[in-house]
Amino acid sequence: MIVILKPKTSEEEIKRLTDELQVEGVEVNPVIGKDIIILGLVGDTSKIDKDRIEANKNVEKVMHVQEPFKKANRMFHPEKTIVDINGQKIGGKKIALIAGPCSVESRDQILEVANSVKKCGANFLRGGAFKPRTSPYSFQGLKYDGLDLLKEAREETGLPIVTEIMSPYDIEVFERDVDIIQVGARNMQNFDLLKELGRLNKPILLKRGLSSTIEEWLMSAEYIMAGGNENVILCERGIRTFETYTRNTLDLSAIPAVKKLSHLPVVVDPSHSAGKAWMVEDLSKAAVAIGADGLIIEVHNNPAKALCDGQQSIKPSEYEELLNKLRPIAEAVGREI
Amino acid sequence: MIVILKPKTSEEEIKRLTDELQVEGVEVNPVIGKDIIILGLVGDTSKIDKDRIEANKNVEKVMHVQEPFKKANRMFHPEKTIVDINGQKIGGKKIALIAGPCSVESRDQILEVANSVKKCGANFLRGGAFKPRTSPYSFQGLKYDGLDLLKEAREETGLPIVTEIMSPYDIEVFERDVDIIQVGARNMQNFDLLKELGRLNKPILLKRGLSSTIEEWLMSAEYIMAGGNENVILCERGIRTFETYTRNTLDLSAIPAVKKLSHLPVVVDPSHSAGKAWMVEDLSKAAVAIGADGLIIEVHNNPAKALCDGQQSIKPSEYEELLNKLRPIAEAVGREI
Amino acid sequence: MIVILKPKTSEEEIKRLTDELQVEGVEVNPVIGKDIIILGLVGDTSKIDKDRIEANKNVEKVMHVQEPFKKANRMFHPEKTIVDINGQKIGGKKIALIAGPCSVESRDQILEVANSVKKCGANFLRGGAFKPRTSPYSFQGLKYDGLDLLKEAREETGLPIVTEIMSPYDIEVFERDVDIIQVGARNMQNFDLLKELGRLNKPILLKRGLSSTIEEWLMSAEYIMAGGNENVILCERGIRTFETYTRNTLDLSAIPAVKKLSHLPVVVDPSHSAGKAWMVEDLSKAAVAIGADGLIIEVHNNPAKALCDGQQSIKPSEYEELLNKLRPIAEAVGREI
Amino acid sequence: MIVILKPKTSEEEIKRLTDELQVEGVEVNPVIGKDIIILGLVGDTSKIDKDRIEANKNVEKVMHVQEPFKKANRMFHPEKTIVDINGQKIGGKKIALIAGPCSVESRDQILEVANSVKKCGANFLRGGAFKPRTSPYSFQGLKYDGLDLLKEAREETGLPIVTEIMSPYDIEVFERDVDIIQVGARNMQNFDLLKELGRLNKPILLKRGLSSTIEEWLMSAEYIMAGGNENVILCERGIRTFETYTRNTLDLSAIPAVKKLSHLPVVVDPSHSAGKAWMVEDLSKAAVAIGADGLIIEVHNNPAKALCDGQQSIKPSEYEELLNKLRPIAEAVGREI
Repeated sequence: MIVILKPKTSEEEIKRLTDELQVEGVEVNPVIGKDIIILGLVGDTSKIDKDRIEANKNVEKVMHVQEPFKKANRMFHPEKTIVDINGQKIGGKKIALIAGPCSVESRDQILEVANSVKKCGANFLRGGAFKPRTSPYSFQGLKYDGLDLLKEAREETGLPIVTEIMSPYDIEVFERDVDIIQVGARNMQNFDLLKELGRLNKPILLKRGLSSTIEEWLMSAEYIMAGGNENVILCERGIRTFETYTRNTLDLSAIPAVKKLSHLPVVVDPSHSAGKAWMVEDLSKAAVAIGADGLIIEVHNNPAKALCDGQQSIKPSEYEELLNKLRPIAEAVGREI
Repeated sequence: MIVILKPKTSEEEIKRLTDELQVEGVEVNPVIGKDIIILGLVGDTSKIDKDRIEANKNVEKVMHVQEPFKKANRMFHPEKTIVDINGQKIGGKKIALIAGPCSVESRDQILEVANSVKKCGANFLRGGAFKPRTSPYSFQGLKYDGLDLLKEAREETGLPIVTEIMSPYDIEVFERDVDIIQVGARNMQNFDLLKELGRLNKPILLKRGLSSTIEEWLMSAEYIMAGGNENVILCERGIRTFETYTRNTLDLSAIPAVKKLSHLPVVVDPSHSAGKAWMVEDLSKAAVAIGADGLIIEVHNNPAKALCDGQQSIKPSEYEELLNKLRPIAEAVGREI
Repeated sequence: MIVILKPKTSEEEIKRLTDELQVEGVEVNPVIGKDIIILGLVGDTSKIDKDRIEANKNVEKVMHVQEPFKKANRMFHPEKTIVDINGQKIGGKKIALIAGPCSVESRDQILEVANSVKKCGANFLRGGAFKPRTSPYSFQGLKYDGLDLLKEAREETGLPIVTEIMSPYDIEVFERDVDIIQVGARNMQNFDLLKELGRLNKPILLKRGLSSTIEEWLMSAEYIMAGGNENVILCERGIRTFETYTRNTLDLSAIPAVKKLSHLPVVVDPSHSAGKAWMVEDLSKAAVAIGADGLIIEVHNNPAKALCDGQQSIKPSEYEELLNKLRPIAEAVGREI
Repeated sequence: MIVILKPKTSEEEIKRLTDELQVEGVEVNPVIGKDIIILGLVGDTSKIDKDRIEANKNVEKVMHVQEPFKKANRMFHPEKTIVDINGQKIGGKKIALIAGPCSVESRDQILEVANSVKKCGANFLRGGAFKPRTSPYSFQGLKYDGLDLLKEAREETGLPIVTEIMSPYDIEVFERDVDIIQVGARNMQNFDLLKELGRLNKPILLKRGLSSTIEEWLMSAEYIMAGGNENVILCERGIRTFETYTRNTLDLSAIPAVKKLSHLPVVVDPSHSAGKAWMVEDLSKAAVAIGADGLIIEVHNNPAKALCDGQQSIKPSEYEELLNKLRPIAEAVGREI
């Protein structure tokens, strides 16, 4: 950590601040020039609050040097994490294929889609039972009935199920019934929910918030890991920018960035980012080429009748064709589909 | 609602889509040109799902014409809402002055600050008991003990208290103990929490999400109002942009925008937006001039020792001076401090 | 300047880099800890290229400590700059009132508007002769004929004229005929144009680029000033963000920021930022309250017939009323209208 | 084009506006409901100014239905454009490989890099002679001497040269000496420069502005094409977002978007977007997979000594290795390297 002081800070003031910082257990190295005074802090700075130091009237700025996350940090955990879900792995050589409808709508729909995507090669089934919708007047999901239908689909196909949790009240049910618990983009900084998920022994798929930096995203992973649950799978799903042609801007640079900073696996959601079914193929190709550990794709048996997000869903036949096109790209980058 | 069809859509397809839309109870008016086909939808379009229509392969784009919120909409509720909290009003001629520390830290601290800001003229006390922090290793607030101290400060000063809720588990306690329940920016789209708050009869201070549009913000207010709780106070606290000099960019244009679109009162938080104590005065002046219904300002008896956000807190003496400077501006725009 | 090295950089490598940096004339102070190695650079670092050091494979990051601008920097020029244009001042106690149509359209139009705004109290006339338009098919301005009409309006009213330059070819004409040369937002980093304007002895109104940081904006001012022309007036006109309700987001925090960082005067353009005539009043009030040195407002005798930007123009009668409302706010903050 | 009127607009006013619009040569179809009045405009709306209609007090909003660009529009020009530069093609099956240093620094440097990249397989040489730098105190390029060195490198290697133009004064020299004239991101809306380039018969590489929408980018291409020069190559190089880990956010979704909207070829610059040499490989893989028509990559013989952008340059040996890794991906998507 580096503390920049205001140019005319007196020696006495520097001494006082230095003493204060040393009390917190770090070594303080001053660098003093005519127009610049820097304090270089060496040691464990993780307990020092940046904001608190910045409140000192002689302090111009405080800068982090090291990443503020530890358990998620690749520096302290160099080997890649591979999350194992009943034998299906995320983070290994094989690219995880998570597919299914935006919402579970009916028994027929979810069973049909589950069987179709399984046949294509998907190894996880996704489907929303509790839906976060911008409008209180939109379809909010089948809730517990949706969960039951997902379980039925799992029983029939053997595919582990991935679905989003919206409320801490549902944690016990999700812990019992769901294979990967998804935290949606809008809840990425719902810290109380993250803390509770940290106490489980269950994989968490953590979507990146619409306007969250990579560092904040990893700090949210850290919340879960700090509680003891290290089975975190990150999911890039597009960030909010000024561009309006696509619903969000898929930040594919986040994939190599996360891989450098962290050991956690990271998957890509090409359906939500663009919000356009016809773009799913191209974005999936890029995601595989750049090293994503998995793809989470919306597949619906009848997109035009979907109760949500139909405009970004593809049909099972298109999904099959897509996987065929992705296979040689995966191979070209040393992966497998 | 307007549905733009692809240029070469056949008459038969237009007919089929028109029939489908009419079933949902709206009148469909086609406008057909050489390179453009538009369906103008007249009637109650609130139940029609934009995404669903966009999933139709002949549809190019669907555009809303009317705002998707109703209870929060000024069109259907032309008079301004004034929220009354034990006689203190937000939304009337008098500008609401909400002040206090970022976090409640100790009995002495909160009582000292509460008494000071009351003496200056504040009419509400703010203070965090449950703190949303980016890092799991930062101070997370005194929690229930913090709430107790806030209640003690209310008893001593008579100031109604404003504090943030983080978890639905705490709703009963907050309903009983708190005067205005704050929903933080990171929870603005925590829809399950919003729904539960909608069932209370208690004012809610709804902060704008860091990357939420004005429409999304009003839709979150709509979530609370749809449940029956119409006592919503909006709070602009800065949005996330590319600019890094300030922590966030205070979007003051949102104040007149919200006042045009909605009847709800809107207050401004100049402390969190810039993240710089020295900028609080200037931003407060602008907020009052542009018509904010209140100011929520971080005041701390000893900012340099604050356990959070010290760098953006001002001292009670500075708060007093600030209010003196704001008074003539308030008067100039027909308000009162 | 601070250079962060990678944790395992060898002593030899540190020595080599230190020597390299000392050759450039700065003193290098190393701070060495277990997980962190910092080089604190003291002296004149303005000639050191940050990117170049970052290309060294042992360097993790390079951080500026001091602002990279000098002539525009308040630290080296503590008194505020007041630009004098034929006796009319920008940056003093009196708030500069620049008004006029988006484009000069005809003799009648510009004379009518010029006379009207003068009567209301404006002290500068604005009007576009060369128009930067997103589409090549939109009206591009009357060009030299427009300039002639502006000169005629100046002769009739005595108001100095402000108009935008688009091409370096026109510099001589503008130097001769125009009182304040405007650089539009889209040309803020047209460095060749800035350099040429730096050779003139003529005030330059430098609009902030749509996605330019405050630092980049001041660096563009520095380009002009480095050439010898220190008569730079900054103009905040809204930045591009994710919000679409307003055309751009007026960043009013930039006003106090610029005043702290620089001695240059800064004016606000409330017409272009929101792109909505009805919002001009509210944004102007906030701009005056926050300390803007001037307001540049689009006034048109017949907005509905304007050849450009009619939707954000107000009528002369509205302008008059606006100034009446701004007067007490100006007074409240120690300024004058 | 669609014009939304305010709900209570009188019939007479509708009639007046309808007449006004019909005069401009379009057919006006009104759709009138209780809470909504829409005018659907059919015919050639390209001459109608959206802003002007929005200035009418009864108009709520005006929405484009069709893209405002014509010559760049795929709808009117369904076959892909292939730009031919002395036999080297951009837009065909073969992916264009443009490589070279950020700046031309010396005879030795440019010749060494040119020969190296040619040997690796590059088919174009890039190198900056005139450099747009944020600071007036940074190295600004060797200018005309740099151009001469580029010509020498072309003579030696046969590679066509790509270099950036900064000023209209240099158009004649560039027309004579340069094979592809680059317009930098900061000049993307320097409309006067675009117009002049429109008069040439020379390929233009048009970089996307840092905060330009895809539509604005295509409108800038339209400026060049409207003048008669249809040899435009688009270049995505990252947009400005809130994320600070990467210098800019590479918007790879822009590639399929541009290909759908336009027939122009589009290349990707992975060096400038991230600003990190180690990320070039991953971003290049994704760019090829998503369908980019070319890659423009910074290659320097000694990045740590580069006079600019060294931190994002790779060495010739790394470039060679990169191309080897890209080959199978290109093949997987039906392209060739």
